[in-house]
Amino acid sequence: MSKVLVTGHKNPDTDSISSAIAYAYLKKQLGVHAQAVRIGEVNKETAYALHYFQVDPPVFADEGVRQDVEEIILVDHNEAQQSIDDREKYNVVEVIDHHRIANFETMAPLYYRAEPVGCTATILLKLFKENNVDIPKDLAGLMMSAIISDSLLFKSPTCTDEDVQAAKELARIADTDLESYGLEMLKAGADMSDKTPDD
Amino acid sequence: MSKVLVTGHKNPDTDSISSAIAYAYLKKQLGVHAQAVRIGEVNKETAYALHYFQVDPPVFADEGVRQDVEEIILVDHNEAQQSIDDREKYNVVEVIDHHRIANFETMAPLYYRAEPVGCTATILLKLFKENNVDIPKDLAGLMMSAIISDSLLFKSPTCTDEDVQAAKELARIADTDLESYGLEMLKAGADMSDKTPDD
Ligand SMILES: [Mn+2]
Ligand SMILES: [Mn+2]
Ligand SMILES: [Mn+2]
Ligand SMILES: [Mn+2]
Repeated sequence: MSKVLVTGHKNPDTDSISSAIAYAYLKKQLGVHAQAVRIGEVNKETAYALHYFQVDPPVFADEGVRQDVEEIILVDHNEAQQSIDDREKYNVVEVIDHHRIANFETMAPLYYRAEPVGCTATILLKLFKENNVDIPKDLAGLMMSAIISDSLLFKSPTCTDEDVQAAKELARIADTDLESYGLEMLKAGADMSDKTPDD
Repeated sequence: MSKVLVTGHKNPDTDSISSAIAYAYLKKQLGVHAQAVRIGEVNKETAYALHYFQVDPPVFADEGVRQDVEEIILVDHNEAQQSIDDREKYNVVEVIDHHRIANFETMAPLYYRAEPVGCTATILLKLFKENNVDIPKDLAGLMMSAIISDSLLFKSPTCTDEDVQAAKELARIADTDLESYGLEMLKAGADMSDKTPDD
């Protein structure tokens, strides 16, 4: 079985990085040879979260990593222009996302899970539960960080009650104080120079 | 709250009709003013299933039914050319489907649930469970009919193990013999003149 890459969008934010890591973990628990990758630099906010929870960043999806890969899974985006270069070379077998759908087309049926919530990690929490897979403490911390990031600590208009409840549940698993950690993480990323226009 | 129409594709098959009825029922149980509609004639096979389980067909989506409607939910399709005329006038708030994604675009985030299985009704069974809503006996019969139809009684190459298990579970709820009912239903629809090229 050749490996499946799990990738977020270009100029990756904390949701794209954390959701790639968390979903690759879930797929591996389900027997899929999945590898989380990134298609851009880790920003300061995400670096803070990765360091805090002691998780390595995903590898950059260079030529070597892409070698012999035929299938990819998209998290936190679907539009072609935000996606991995040469996407048309791959078979997109799954998408987990919370954005509108545009510039997206497949040749074959796929698993596509979009929900109108504020963060991909909120959907991933449901997927872990639906598949009866426990979330490790460190990954729960990253998923919580993703929700804090996309929702600006629940202040964004895209934030739903489901995001708030998910973040609280993940904070309990991560054994982390949501508010104080969240403020520190947002502060670490507050140098806006490497923020992307869309979350 | 204005009503939300739930519609399958043009030249509706048993999956498009049954899934529209079943998903509108589920949404209503969840407090949404949903109405199942059809955008074409009921074929002979579907008529057999509706008569057997004593369920009325969805109303035709004529001008009157569409009056003041702003939101629609698509089942069993997503491509524009297979969909309700003037789709661009509506906000597509949800899609439940098992086909490839093409010619589909939204302005806003939505709930999109596609899975690579043989029938929309197989996905709907999961959605009833995820929402803890019981499936009435007659609707279970229709959903079972949809799986029999799309899978040609499990002989189609698109049929997955999940479809087979779902049909068996629905047959138990409907208290119907899957094989003998299935053969009769397929026979009732065997006049191929009103079958569509895609399931
Ligand atoms: Mn996001
Ligand atoms: Mn993002
Ligand atoms: Mn179908
Ligand atoms: Mn169909």
